[in-house]
Amino acid sequence: MSDFSTTEWIALDWGTSHLRAWIMGAGAQVLDRRESDAGMGSLAPDQFEGALLELISDCLPAGQVTPVITCGMAGSRQGWAEAAYRAVPCTPPGAELMTRVKTADSRIQVHILPGVKQLQPADVMRGEETQIAGFLAREPKFDGVLCLPGTHSKWARISAGEIVSFQSYMTGEMFALLSRQSVLRHGMAGEGWNEAAFTAAIGDAMSRPQALAAQLFALRAGSLIADLDAATARARLSGLLIGIELAAARPYWLGQDIAVLGADDLAEAYMRALTAQGCLPRSVAADEMTLAGLSAAWTTLNGDTT
Amino acid sequence: MSDFSTTEWIALDWGTSHLRAWIMGAGAQVLDRRESDAGMGSLAPDQFEGALLELISDCLPAGQVTPVITCGMAGSRQGWAEAAYRAVPCTPPGAELMTRVKTADSRIQVHILPGVKQLQPADVMRGEETQIAGFLAREPKFDGVLCLPGTHSKWARISAGEIVSFQSYMTGEMFALLSRQSVLRHGMAGEGWNEAAFTAAIGDAMSRPQALAAQLFALRAGSLIADLDAATARARLSGLLIGIELAAARPYWLGQDIAVLGADDLAEAYMRALTAQGCLPRSVAADEMTLAGLSAAWTTLNGDTT
Repeated sequence: MSDFSTTEWIALDWGTSHLRAWIMGAGAQVLDRRESDAGMGSLAPDQFEGALLELISDCLPAGQVTPVITCGMAGSRQGWAEAAYRAVPCTPPGAELMTRVKTADSRIQVHILPGVKQLQPADVMRGEETQIAGFLAREPKFDGVLCLPGTHSKWARISAGEIVSFQSYMTGEMFALLSRQSVLRHGMAGEGWNEAAFTAAIGDAMSRPQALAAQLFALRAGSLIADLDAATARARLSGLLIGIELAAARPYWLGQDIAVLGADDLAEAYMRALTAQGCLPRSVAADEMTLAGLSAAWTTLNGDTT
Repeated sequence: MSDFSTTEWIALDWGTSHLRAWIMGAGAQVLDRRESDAGMGSLAPDQFEGALLELISDCLPAGQVTPVITCGMAGSRQGWAEAAYRAVPCTPPGAELMTRVKTADSRIQVHILPGVKQLQPADVMRGEETQIAGFLAREPKFDGVLCLPGTHSKWARISAGEIVSFQSYMTGEMFALLSRQSVLRHGMAGEGWNEAAFTAAIGDAMSRPQALAAQLFALRAGSLIADLDAATARARLSGLLIGIELAAARPYWLGQDIAVLGADDLAEAYMRALTAQGCLPRSVAADEMTLAGLSAAWTTLNGDTT
């Protein structure tokens, strides 16, 4: 059991499906990490405070107002309180643009970081901009492209400390829908993986992206009449979807310095796919970048208020 | 209330989500049409007979064994009884290839028409082959392409009375998943339609099919920050998905005599999309073709057994 009498502030990444918290002590020490499934998608605006307190109230020192800084979907219109988007080109929004949220509990003082939007083509991010802020806090001179795999993967051009432009793809959500809720689910049970099928599917999708819907049905037909196994089918589905994304994102990654933010299986799949295209991407832990971005906001806030 | 003492046979189209029946009298007269939601997907093999009797038992004349002919998913491995696929190139399978199903009720004699498969690239159909049989019964000299829109739309090359090759697309199922179960559902409520957005999206998808996943997320971003209305978003989603299908199916439709089987909104959308590409497609009622295909099987069966 940690000693939370020294809690200085609390960092939150509040997404659609999860709430993640870091309990922060002096000197950037992480006293504890916690997580709940009280995501924005399951909460009405007046339920956020309760969900937060349920997760972290035992970490609040007595006789002190503890700052809480959050990024992500908590700042969307359907979230806790809207934190208006900043428009690219821009530096990732920091403490000076946070939205202060009133709480019933006077032990906490909640701040929400805004997301970033792009007007043309229309695009939005909430949460990724804080990962980018964390990345830039460590590498302020970075000039290149950040790839952020996820439910809605994003590619962002970074130069001179600014997000210049970005593009989001529904790749992750399409994989989830197709593998779990479409007719393809029958042929994808289990956890196996076929790397050769993944690589081949990337090539197929990049050379004939228009064939996607036919290639998808071929997975169903293959399992019915050609003994296509589940591991191969799942890897091929992933490769087809990542492949058409790579084909469309080519202007982003071709000849660029690339960092992939993420350390999970999905991020590793992007790493291998990019490497197969002749890129030399770096892998950066997304979690650490989120905390680094929130910490940069804390440093500013703390400097401004003490 | 019809007089079912003259019922000769019963035609069924038994799909994944619906069961449709035509009660047939002498001289190809349709005595009644009925439908239930007892689709293959919701039935175990031993529940098919009961679901059928519930729908049509009052139409069975006393003192007679009434033939029942069905096409569709009832003949799949998970259906009532497996009716093995015939492989292309082939004529659409008719009465000589039907699978006889034993029933507990001796008033009916059930026959299932097989589906059609293609080995390379792997593909399957169940139900559409009977529509094709019906189409060819009316136009035995047809040489061209049939487009069959639906959950898994199909394009079939027809020549000399045979299905030469075909290709299926998950277009319809992707539209259903994305419009109802993805993040895009928030921006697609209601029933409106924007034809100009549909047409523009087809062009966008055909010229840059690889951008699909980005164009999809742009619908979400557009509704968040650019006042994209639901009618435009839904029409654009449909256009993007039909557009990449048309791009991939170009070798099927380019310069061909085309008939679109279907009379619903979806089939009409394909008609307009093909017309915009310079095609002169004909529209043929899919329901009539299904019944015509089942009737062709009945004629053969009846000729063979009387």
